[in-house]
Amino acid sequence: MNFKDNFSYFKNNSQEIYFDSSATSIKFDKVIEAQSEYDLKIAANTHNNLFDNAYKANQILLETRQKVANFIGVDDYREIIFTSGTTHSLNQLAFGLRKEFNEKDEILLTKLEHSSNLLPWRVLAEEENLKVDYLELDENFLIDISKISNKVNDKTKVISFAMNSNTIGSLNNVKQIVKEIRRIKKNIIIILDLAQSIAHNKINLKELDVDCAAFSTHKLYGPFGLGILWARKEILEKLKPIFYGGGNNTSISVDNYKLAPIPEKFEAGTLNLSAIYAFKKCLELIQKLNIERMISYEEELKNYFKLRLKEIDLSKFDFYNLKNNQPIVLFNLKNVNSQDFGSFLNKKYKISVRVGKHCARLANDLFKVGSTIRVSFSIYNTKEDIDKFIEALKDCDSWIEEII
Amino acid sequence: MNFKDNFSYFKNNSQEIYFDSSATSIKFDKVIEAQSEYDLKIAANTHNNLFDNAYKANQILLETRQKVANFIGVDDYREIIFTSGTTHSLNQLAFGLRKEFNEKDEILLTKLEHSSNLLPWRVLAEEENLKVDYLELDENFLIDISKISNKVNDKTKVISFAMNSNTIGSLNNVKQIVKEIRRIKKNIIIILDLAQSIAHNKINLKELDVDCAAFSTHKLYGPFGLGILWARKEILEKLKPIFYGGGNNTSISVDNYKLAPIPEKFEAGTLNLSAIYAFKKCLELIQKLNIERMISYEEELKNYFKLRLKEIDLSKFDFYNLKNNQPIVLFNLKNVNSQDFGSFLNKKYKISVRVGKHCARLANDLFKVGSTIRVSFSIYNTKEDIDKFIEALKDCDSWIEEII
Repeated sequence: MNFKDNFSYFKNNSQEIYFDSSATSIKFDKVIEAQSEYDLKIAANTHNNLFDNAYKANQILLETRQKVANFIGVDDYREIIFTSGTTHSLNQLAFGLRKEFNEKDEILLTKLEHSSNLLPWRVLAEEENLKVDYLELDENFLIDISKISNKVNDKTKVISFAMNSNTIGSLNNVKQIVKEIRRIKKNIIIILDLAQSIAHNKINLKELDVDCAAFSTHKLYGPFGLGILWARKEILEKLKPIFYGGGNNTSISVDNYKLAPIPEKFEAGTLNLSAIYAFKKCLELIQKLNIERMISYEEELKNYFKLRLKEIDLSKFDFYNLKNNQPIVLFNLKNVNSQDFGSFLNKKYKISVRVGKHCARLANDLFKVGSTIRVSFSIYNTKEDIDKFIEALKDCDSWIEEII
Repeated sequence: MNFKDNFSYFKNNSQEIYFDSSATSIKFDKVIEAQSEYDLKIAANTHNNLFDNAYKANQILLETRQKVANFIGVDDYREIIFTSGTTHSLNQLAFGLRKEFNEKDEILLTKLEHSSNLLPWRVLAEEENLKVDYLELDENFLIDISKISNKVNDKTKVISFAMNSNTIGSLNNVKQIVKEIRRIKKNIIIILDLAQSIAHNKINLKELDVDCAAFSTHKLYGPFGLGILWARKEILEKLKPIFYGGGNNTSISVDNYKLAPIPEKFEAGTLNLSAIYAFKKCLELIQKLNIERMISYEEELKNYFKLRLKEIDLSKFDFYNLKNNQPIVLFNLKNVNSQDFGSFLNKKYKISVRVGKHCARLANDLFKVGSTIRVSFSIYNTKEDIDKFIEALKDCDSWIEEII
C-alpha cells in the first residue's frame, strides 16, 4: 500500500504538491474519522465514570497515554501529559521551573531554536534575572560536542534544544550531546524539542537519556490542538503547573488546596478528548505502517531529489542544507526575493512551500540571509512531486512572468 | 425542525438520556462535519499566505474572530483571543495580570466558582502575597448586590465570577452587579466566567459592561480543545502572555524581542484550526436556530420538569435549585449516597448524570452536603427525557436492587 492512499486530502487537492509538512502535516484519514467517531459515538467528558460513555472516555485517556509512552520509549505512562501543543509543553516547562532557579543561573539553548523554545526561556530569564547563552554549532549547524564544555558550568541549570532544526532539519546526535553534558555536570535538566523530529525519526527517550521532551500531534499526521509533554517523574513532582482548574486538584478549602498527582496535576480543564482518541488511532496506524519504513521512504525521496538536482544549474541557487538526509530543503534563487519565487512555485506549479524566517528568529543570522524558501516533505509526497519541483527549478528564470 | 435532529449522536446512543451537558454538550453534526472538512480539504497552518489553502486558513481565523465578536456583543474582533478552553483563558488572565498587583491587593470571587476561576487566583495570591475574599451570596446563591460594598475597597483590583454557577445554575444579575461595583470603585477589572452561560443565555458583553470574559466552545455544541478569551483592548495591552512562541512575536534578536500586536500576542503556536473552522459553522447554525428560541425551549423543559415534579413524594429528596429557570437540577435522594443513586439512574434508566462536587470545591459547603447529583439538560433533550427521569424518581426506592 502506498503511504499516500491514507490521505484523502490529496483527492480533494489533486493538483497541489504539498511541501509544507514542517508547518503541519496532512492528517491520516483514520485520524479524521476517529475524531468524528468520538464526537458521534462517545462525546462524554472525563472526571466521572458513572455512565458508559464517560467510562469509555477515561479508558481512552489511559490507553492513549500508554500508547504514547510506548511510542517514545517511556516506561511510566503517568509521565505523559496531554497539552494543547509543543508551545504549551515548552512554556509549561520553562515557567513551571521558575522556582528552581537561583539568580544568575544559566540556561543553554542554540541559535537554531524555534521561537517556542527560545522566547519562553528569554522571558523567564528577564523576569528572574537569569542568563541565556547558546551552545556552539559546527559548520553543518549541529551542536558542536567538542565545544559543549566551553558553555556548561556550575551555574547551568537547564539545556533545551531541538533534535532537528525546523529550518534546515539538521539532526543532532542527542545521545552523544547528553553524554557530554552529563560528563561535565550531572544535575542539569536536559529538554528535547521533538516538534520537527517526531514524524521523521524513531525516538527512544530512555536511550537518549534526556529529562523532558515535547511535541505536537498535528506534525505526526495527527489532530490539531493536542501536544505531549513528557518529563521524568522527579521533575514533574517539582514542576509547578501553569494551568489550574478542574481536575488538577483533589481539594480546595478556604485556607488550603491540594494538587492532584501526576499526570492530572498538569491537565486542568477539559482535555481535547476527540483529538486524544484520534491520536490513539494515529499511533495504531503508524505501528502498522512501520515508522522505520516511513523514515526510509522519506530518505529515499531526499536522495532522489539530490540526484535529480544534478540536472540543475546550481550557480543560480543557494541551497543551505543539502548534506543532511532529513526531508527538508532550504534554498533561495539568487538575487530574487524568496517571497516572489515562492509565489511563482505556487502559481505556476501548484507547489505549496513556506517562505520567511520559519519562526526560528536567530537562525537566519547563521545563514546570513533574511528570508528563505522551505520545502518540507513527508510520506505522502512522491517522486512525481520531486520531478515537478525539479521542473520548476529548471524553469526558474520565468518567475517574473508569473509575478507581475 | 426539532433541535435534536441536529445531533446524530442520539442515533448512535438511542437508549441514553444525556443529562451531562454542563460537563460537555453533544456536538452539532455540522460541527463534526466541518472539523473533518477542514482536515480533508484545507489542512494548512496559518502564519503564511503563500499558497491557496494557507490563505484560506488565515481567512477562516479572521472570519471566526468576527463571528465570535458579533455573537457576544464585542465591537473589535481583535479583542477575541483563541485559547484551548475556559481554563486556559482564566489562567491567562490571572497570571497575565501578575505585574498589575501590589502586595496586599485584593481579589474578589464567590464560593460558587468552578476550580478554574478559583485556583488560579488562589495560587497567584499565594505567590504575590495578595488577599482573596468572597462576595456574599443571598439565600438563592446569587451575589447579594446590597452587600457588595462590604467587600469592595481601595485594595480591590480584580473581581471574577461566573454568570451562572455550574452546580445550581443560579443566574447572576451581571449588569446590576457591575453597576454597583463601578459605583463604589471605578478601576476594578471585572471578569465574567461564561463557561456555563454561553449556551443558555443571550450574551452582550458591551451591555454587561464587564472587562473580560471566558468560555469554551465544547459547551456550546462546538468542538473540544477551543476556548475564547475576550478582554478590552486596554487590558490586553497590559496583560502579559503565558505562552510564548511562533506567531506571538515580530522579532527576536540576541539582546531583544518584540511581541506581536493583539490578538496574536496571546496566540503563540499552532492554533486548533479545524476546531476554529468548526466553531464558525457552529455559530452560523446557532444564528439559524436562534439563540432565543433555544433558551425558551430549555426553559420550557425546566418548567415541564417542575410541573411533573408535583407527582413525586418530595419528602424523599433534597432539591437544591428548583427556583431558577436554568437547565440544571441539583438533588439528592435523602440518606442515599449520591454515587449509588446516580448509578441506579444509569443502570436501570440509561440516564447519564454527574455526581460529586462538580469542580466547585467550595460550593458544597454552602449546600452543607458532600456530594450531589447534577442533571443538566439542553436543546437536544425532550419532554420524553423528563418523563423518563420522573419515572426514575418515582421508582427511587428500588435503587438498592440495581446497585448490589
